[in-house]
Amino acid sequence: MRVFIAGIDGYLGWALAQYLTARGHAVAGADLFLRRQWVEEMGSWSATPVVDIETRLAAFEENFGTRLLFRTGDLCDYEFVETFFKEFQPEAIVHLGEMPSAPYSMQSVKHAAFTMNNNIVSTLNILFAMRDVVPDSHLVKLGTMGEYGTPNIDIPEGFFEIEYRGRKDTLPFPRQAGSWYHQTKVHDSNNVLFACKIWGLRSTDIMQGVVFGTRIDEMGDDERLLSRFDFDESFGTAINRFCAMSVIGHPLTPFGKGNQKRGFLPMRDSMQCLTLAIENPPITSAYRVFNQFEEVYSVNELADKVVKVAQELGLKDAVVRRVENPRKEMEEHYYKPDHQHLFDLGYQPTHDMEAELRIMINDLVRYRDRIEAKRDLLIPEIRWDGTRQKVGFIGR
Amino acid sequence: MRVFIAGIDGYLGWALAQYLTARGHAVAGADLFLRRQWVEEMGSWSATPVVDIETRLAAFEENFGTRLLFRTGDLCDYEFVETFFKEFQPEAIVHLGEMPSAPYSMQSVKHAAFTMNNNIVSTLNILFAMRDVVPDSHLVKLGTMGEYGTPNIDIPEGFFEIEYRGRKDTLPFPRQAGSWYHQTKVHDSNNVLFACKIWGLRSTDIMQGVVFGTRIDEMGDDERLLSRFDFDESFGTAINRFCAMSVIGHPLTPFGKGNQKRGFLPMRDSMQCLTLAIENPPITSAYRVFNQFEEVYSVNELADKVVKVAQELGLKDAVVRRVENPRKEMEEHYYKPDHQHLFDLGYQPTHDMEAELRIMINDLVRYRDRIEAKRDLLIPEIRWDGTRQKVGFIGR
Repeated sequence: MRVFIAGIDGYLGWALAQYLTARGHAVAGADLFLRRQWVEEMGSWSATPVVDIETRLAAFEENFGTRLLFRTGDLCDYEFVETFFKEFQPEAIVHLGEMPSAPYSMQSVKHAAFTMNNNIVSTLNILFAMRDVVPDSHLVKLGTMGEYGTPNIDIPEGFFEIEYRGRKDTLPFPRQAGSWYHQTKVHDSNNVLFACKIWGLRSTDIMQGVVFGTRIDEMGDDERLLSRFDFDESFGTAINRFCAMSVIGHPLTPFGKGNQKRGFLPMRDSMQCLTLAIENPPITSAYRVFNQFEEVYSVNELADKVVKVAQELGLKDAVVRRVENPRKEMEEHYYKPDHQHLFDLGYQPTHDMEAELRIMINDLVRYRDRIEAKRDLLIPEIRWDGTRQKVGFIGR
Repeated sequence: MRVFIAGIDGYLGWALAQYLTARGHAVAGADLFLRRQWVEEMGSWSATPVVDIETRLAAFEENFGTRLLFRTGDLCDYEFVETFFKEFQPEAIVHLGEMPSAPYSMQSVKHAAFTMNNNIVSTLNILFAMRDVVPDSHLVKLGTMGEYGTPNIDIPEGFFEIEYRGRKDTLPFPRQAGSWYHQTKVHDSNNVLFACKIWGLRSTDIMQGVVFGTRIDEMGDDERLLSRFDFDESFGTAINRFCAMSVIGHPLTPFGKGNQKRGFLPMRDSMQCLTLAIENPPITSAYRVFNQFEEVYSVNELADKVVKVAQELGLKDAVVRRVENPRKEMEEHYYKPDHQHLFDLGYQPTHDMEAELRIMINDLVRYRDRIEAKRDLLIPEIRWDGTRQKVGFIGR
């Protein structure tokens, strides 16, 4: 299948290009290297060294025996998207090309406005180019479980049938996102649903949980094939950050009470799930939603797991110390999201989370110096109230 | 009260400035005259002659004995908004400064992207400037009843308590907007709710129905004080267009079956409702939603009312002829939205719709030549499927 990946130089995009190519798909992609710039703006870098795109592409060709069709370009430039689609004629389009960080978007009005425009307009451009160039293609759009927030009722996959004042309807499940970034994903979901409705497009909207991991098997021993691995407050996910902290003896820092529950999944399962969505498109015009995660844990539970594995690997300084919560969010709440659609397509979760953590931490130990060099960045300072000041440790 | 009006040169903004000033409020406002440009881009003009802003401001001072503090500027320029708020210290902020047309936004990817960015970023800028400059002020944000779409259940005012799988929660009512423009209003609502939640701001989000009318009493006989009155396919509301059509003997053109139901209200009631919201802010941090309309009619019923009044006024050629529907929307549907919150504040609807239509049509007869000159623009051509071709008459 011809698969176009928007944001192919990113954490998930670069891994997905390899995963799909290894399965025989023809992959093309675009990137503007904004993720590299944003992490630099945070004063940070990837724990895994990220080589320049030419070196990445050369390594790709050496390892997979095929060239990746790559273009540098801005998804907010409609002509760029349209031209690429005309040339490549994608059958599936995976949109991973958005600004993906809540804290980054919360820094200032300029960051909030940039995130809104970048994420919404890139998605609009893809939708219009699908309509006008490849109307039979299938959009796999990366959203986030964070779109739903933490309602006091079960979370279905996108839609629910409700009875209200004696009448029934099936409606989009209300979204309650917790950052400007998360809001953009909600706006995208609304826009993608609308485009499917009026133009008969096909789309799968992925509500993804928190992804963790350094690698997938396809990367083998070639360091040039590794995905980037961010651990700064903006671009590192909770678990990736916890693993990075454990290798340099920095306390692992759940926010507030740490009882915030989230869905988690390893990067290899994210690849498996995205590929299931790509290889099993809706047959006719449709907008479907997949909740994509493996298991629900509280942030405290995850931190404890990381400490356990780190200790087993001899990282004796790994401890958990909670910090003030820089966000405004519920720290105790009900959380029961459905995630059946991917199982229906044959999803086989990686059940051994500790084995995955062992691989990650072992990988990160090799890059201990690169993490140590940015130790000062591990305590967050971007606060949801608009101020900027490092949070303090709380409790024991 | 010091009231800032964003979009003060527009249809509602210019009337509201007069309505509030007559009631003793101190009004300031900003505009970039984009509405004038957009209507020009459609090849059209206002039926009522719109004089330049200097003439408008001079007329304002002559009639109301006070100067209007006006600045030309872009709400998408954060510094402009912040500086104005610092200087004026508004107690209430009325945001009418958005691109308000569904067809305009549906024309092309550029128009869709412009509408997204313009509406979302202007609102974000206002929210951030409130947080940083006037955190105790109250935002009255113009949304639209179109945010809700046409669900098969009752529409509450913003939120509803639901039971789902045996548990209960009060959640935002799901939105199903029908154009890119309407989507921006949904995105705004989500963003405003989020800002109120994390920053403790106060806001009233107005889900307004279709407004009609040429004037409010405060305009008196001074033509320079009249609001603009658009009748092109993009910037004319259904009823305003029907009245314009009736005065030049052009058939009134409901789309499709014409059984689409909407909430309607005359401009004078829109002023009354906005003022009730302004003068009765929430006491503490809150995000509240008012559904603002008077009565629900189908488009066919409205057209029939306009024909009846026009005939009584001697406009014997006024007839209804349905046209193909250029939009994708339900033409037969359940529609029962609540609208209690404004009544609770003392809203007194103008019950005599026919009297209002009589005033409008009489006003428009004076500008018959200006409407006649743009007769070709009365049949819409912007279609939701992305094509552009004038719709044809259907049925009898």
